[in-house]
Amino acid sequence: MKYVRKINYYETDRMGITHHSNYIRYIEEARCNFMDKMKLPYSKVESEGFMIPVLSVTCDYKYSTTFDDEITIDTKIAKNNGVRIEFEYIITKADGSLVAKLTSSHCFTDKNLRPINLKKVKKDWFELIEKYRINDSKENI
Amino acid sequence: MKYVRKINYYETDRMGITHHSNYIRYIEEARCNFMDKMKLPYSKVESEGFMIPVLSVTCDYKYSTTFDDEITIDTKIAKNNGVRIEFEYIITKADGSLVAKLTSSHCFTDKNLRPINLKKVKKDWFELIEKYRINDSKENI
Amino acid sequence: MKYVRKINYYETDRMGITHHSNYIRYIEEARCNFMDKMKLPYSKVESEGFMIPVLSVTCDYKYSTTFDDEITIDTKIAKNNGVRIEFEYIITKADGSLVAKLTSSHCFTDKNLRPINLKKVKKDWFELIEKYRINDSKENI
Amino acid sequence: MKYVRKINYYETDRMGITHHSNYIRYIEEARCNFMDKMKLPYSKVESEGFMIPVLSVTCDYKYSTTFDDEITIDTKIAKNNGVRIEFEYIITKADGSLVAKLTSSHCFTDKNLRPINLKKVKKDWFELIEKYRINDSKENI
Repeated sequence: MKYVRKINYYETDRMGITHHSNYIRYIEEARCNFMDKMKLPYSKVESEGFMIPVLSVTCDYKYSTTFDDEITIDTKIAKNNGVRIEFEYIITKADGSLVAKLTSSHCFTDKNLRPINLKKVKKDWFELIEKYRINDSKENI
Repeated sequence: MKYVRKINYYETDRMGITHHSNYIRYIEEARCNFMDKMKLPYSKVESEGFMIPVLSVTCDYKYSTTFDDEITIDTKIAKNNGVRIEFEYIITKADGSLVAKLTSSHCFTDKNLRPINLKKVKKDWFELIEKYRINDSKENI
Repeated sequence: MKYVRKINYYETDRMGITHHSNYIRYIEEARCNFMDKMKLPYSKVESEGFMIPVLSVTCDYKYSTTFDDEITIDTKIAKNNGVRIEFEYIITKADGSLVAKLTSSHCFTDKNLRPINLKKVKKDWFELIEKYRINDSKENI
Repeated sequence: MKYVRKINYYETDRMGITHHSNYIRYIEEARCNFMDKMKLPYSKVESEGFMIPVLSVTCDYKYSTTFDDEITIDTKIAKNNGVRIEFEYIITKADGSLVAKLTSSHCFTDKNLRPINLKKVKKDWFELIEKYRINDSKENI
């Protein structure tokens, strides 16, 4: 699932490039966009009393970007077992050059941040996510 | 009431200076520090079911700062009538040069963001704030 | 000139709403979008050795927004004399309700942040900005 | 090397906790503080024409924090060969509970972001960093 956005001026630092911390924010945007496309927007997840907090992130920076650059974030669901979900992200510039590779892992929780098993609590959501996980894998074959 | 902090690298932009939006965040830090010193920390305000959202801010930028600069924010309570509270902030660099002048106005609300009158609901808090408003004025005579 | 964007999750705070400092960033996005539409993108301004730093901002908050809300920022050039330029911004939600009114004033400088007079140094840019200032005024009649 | 700071209100999100992206910024603060203590402040590195951009970061989140929490970031130099440098960070709350474990790796470059070998270009800086890398390891025995 592809998500496109431009780098804002306030996201650059005095090295002249996008501050590296912002990529962690960009993948949150891409993840939310992915969920919108799945018809399971994150605002709906929250309004039904659930949350998907972040357990870990990794980021490998390959090439810098700066103000006005357009980046594309390609997001895939790497794993999903109802308890944990993992995403992979590849960020490229408009000319196709690789900017960064990221991963994030999350758990499903209730509104008090207590872990839940989506298979038991929201089976239809689990199956929807599975559908998108498998389809995205096929896309790559 | 003075609050001192250093400019972080991630707060600069590619103009080589502190991004102007950050000053709005710095005065929030200074305001919270002021409330800590008053023994009315903002976390206590919230834990008792109240909030003090921002109604307006103004900022005049006089001189830029950048990474590693130490700034001092001098905060005063300009007005307080139990319904609204206004703060004034003067930011200077370590060498005394003027960086920016800001103001912020706020109302007192319950946890659902409905306005309240502090004089009626939390008279002791109102009087505490009044004490600091008047003392700070004296300090300048 | 209208600019539309959605509120990101990382832009909210624990009050449950968009943190007020972000609106200062949103109007920078709207301003850059305006300049793109004028065919005078800010990246071009910088690449030719000029900058347009912020001298002051004001913001009146009318109604809160939160994650997933779509906002529209309507930007107008209020003043332009070649030395200073002033913008006005009206932010509304998708349902038309007023979110915030902001202003920003700026000067034109060289790359060392020394003020310049655009009428003398870049007359074509001055006239282009004038055209957009006047047209936007007409739009309101 | 320990660095202490409080969580700011604007760093929380509507989940009620510190937004996870901020930890990437906190370790930059801790890294700069480490370099200050080494008497090799990052502003000096830049003023002599060098930079230390980030190549990768990892973050494992263990326990959430929120506004007003005090965190301690314990930073160590894990590797240093003059071309690359790696840091490890352990973040704890005031009660000693583990908040997060992070790593960051960096290269040394000139001002045009071209990699350099510190052993050849700035041998005294390399040896200074080595001293702190080795001392910090001893501290743990």
